Amino acid sequence: MRQKLTVRLQERSYDIHIGTDLLDQAELLLAHVPRKRVAIVTNTTVAPLYLERLVNTLRSVGISSHEVVLPDGERYKTSKTLDLIYDALLQSRCERSTPLIALGGGVVGDMTGFAAATYLRGVPFIQIPTTLLSQVDSSVGGKTGINHPLGKNMIGAFYQPQLVMADISTLSTLPDKELSAGLAEVIKYGLIRDLQFLEWLEKNMQALLARDSAALQYAIARSCSNKAEIVGIDERESGERALLNLGHTFGHAIESGMGYGVWLHGEAVAAGTLMAADLSCRLGWISSPDVARVRELFKRARLPVVAPDLGSEKYLELMGMDKKVEGGKLRFVLLKQLGHAVVTVDVPLPLLHETLETCVHG
Amino acid sequence: MRQKLTVRLQERSYDIHIGTDLLDQAELLLAHVPRKRVAIVTNTTVAPLYLERLVNTLRSVGISSHEVVLPDGERYKTSKTLDLIYDALLQSRCERSTPLIALGGGVVGDMTGFAAATYLRGVPFIQIPTTLLSQVDSSVGGKTGINHPLGKNMIGAFYQPQLVMADISTLSTLPDKELSAGLAEVIKYGLIRDLQFLEWLEKNMQALLARDSAALQYAIARSCSNKAEIVGIDERESGERALLNLGHTFGHAIESGMGYGVWLHGEAVAAGTLMAADLSCRLGWISSPDVARVRELFKRARLPVVAPDLGSEKYLELMGMDKKVEGGKLRFVLLKQLGHAVVTVDVPLPLLHETLETCVHG
Repeated sequence: MRQKLTVRLQERSYDIHIGTDLLDQAELLLAHVPRKRVAIVTNTTVAPLYLERLVNTLRSVGISSHEVVLPDGERYKTSKTLDLIYDALLQSRCERSTPLIALGGGVVGDMTGFAAATYLRGVPFIQIPTTLLSQVDSSVGGKTGINHPLGKNMIGAFYQPQLVMADISTLSTLPDKELSAGLAEVIKYGLIRDLQFLEWLEKNMQALLARDSAALQYAIARSCSNKAEIVGIDERESGERALLNLGHTFGHAIESGMGYGVWLHGEAVAAGTLMAADLSCRLGWISSPDVARVRELFKRARLPVVAPDLGSEKYLELMGMDKKVEGGKLRFVLLKQLGHAVVTVDVPLPLLHETLETCVHG
Repeated sequence: MRQKLTVRLQERSYDIHIGTDLLDQAELLLAHVPRKRVAIVTNTTVAPLYLERLVNTLRSVGISSHEVVLPDGERYKTSKTLDLIYDALLQSRCERSTPLIALGGGVVGDMTGFAAATYLRGVPFIQIPTTLLSQVDSSVGGKTGINHPLGKNMIGAFYQPQLVMADISTLSTLPDKELSAGLAEVIKYGLIRDLQFLEWLEKNMQALLARDSAALQYAIARSCSNKAEIVGIDERESGERALLNLGHTFGHAIESGMGYGVWLHGEAVAAGTLMAADLSCRLGWISSPDVARVRELFKRARLPVVAPDLGSEKYLELMGMDKKVEGGKLRFVLLKQLGHAVVTVDVPLPLLHETLETCVHG
């Protein structure tokens, strides 16, 4: 079974294919590789699992491939690793028409996308996400980039792929911890704009954790559908798209404060979303039972619901450097109700302090 | 006297202002700095000449500025220098709404533009070119980027400025050698698509070298007008825009073969254009007197018309790495007649060898 969604962005529109064993289906890729040559970027974890399979599929239709295997991990999402991609592309003389394929999770996708955006001022880009997190979030929407010692994703570009292929079969090798991390972003879609989906998740969390194919495919397709709608309305995050950052202002502070890679992104987003829910409750927008319901769902997804105790001042400092700051004011994505998020700059500092002090205790 | 041209690119359209003492005219900038805060990127040569003046103009209308002063020279057009810009922007907490202003020549403009394209995935960008070369060429059209040890401008982005301010007064401090280098690109517009302008240049070369304001303004405006038309038709160099690379395939080989910065870009383009003219003549497209006429005009502009003797093999190797290679074939921009350039991939190798052997001797 294979589903297709479209991200509608005029001349930058593209399809997302979701299904099982897509890695074996050459016809999806063929149309995007007119010159029968690609460069595949992956990492040391994914390469032994899926690289040969992809290369063979490509070869079966006469497409040759150059391969770039990066070290695995968020801590390698740096300009130094990016240079490894550039060097390989230049050494193998990849041209403006040579597509870059990202085979891996969010880090591989973000870096490969940024390399595609900037190599020879832009080459075609194809996403083959192999983690739940990247299948439901980072592979769709065109955000690409690398980290900087002073902040996460500070350097990057909006650059849309030509094709996204989410192969559910690749999730069979995903560690449990990373499956859960991906579920944090899945739950996010329910919280910000899709109450019905949130209810579906509450009913089907067990099936998702058991990696039931049908449940996963439904959750991925519904997540991508939500994301595609938002990105279609607001490609460059001038409005609506900011809602996707629910939990991310706190989450980035957690990731950065703990050192990149210590907490998985999805784990930080889960704890951060609980903080956002707590703050929304303090503003009188959602109820305590609502917060408890969110906490329960994250817990069932085996995600952390207590933030690390960095100290309030450290949190504020880390959030002050966050790139979602405009005009000196901190912007928060909070919940008006479950299934309805809003962006606000009007958060009284005392309430923020209460949240920062409360949410670090279980 | 001040002129305005528009580069028409739908929602990315922008104005080019050309005139004297624009650095003192705050109203041009004001509309583009709603939050009254900018970052200015310049270099150690331009800063002592014009930075304070620009800062004062901005301050007069309440705009505060952060300043980043880079080392001067093509050899600093690297990822390392780019990092200096990122570091400064992050340390001064520049936001998504903070415009980056490039104050300087092509290197400053290209690097600042690339920083603007990639800092926080894109911030507003303003070009204030202070060399003839950047006023007539690199500040218009949105090509940004840096060099890589394996090739010039290999890493970059298409990213349009919101405003270009070409202040002719700044040319008063430009070294003669750089004025001539700029004239190479001015002559290029005549050669590729504007025979009437070529004839005007033949009549007015003396006035241009004497830095006559009216002559300079006319030449800059007519050059920008040609470039704006081409960029409006073909923003991302899929067709027409490639004509702007007349002399550049050879020219890049010269720059790269001699080591970046040994020859000025415009000097390399002049010698490279003579090679393109020679090759066009060998193909039977233009006549020997035509080639002589082009040589004469470059000579009068005090530009080199003999290429450095790198050896034919070295030239071919250097051109093979050129990013204008598609499908393994070398693409050349050549002259069908004076005032009419075309792109061709059908150059017999023996003719190319003849050009490479002939043009390195005076």
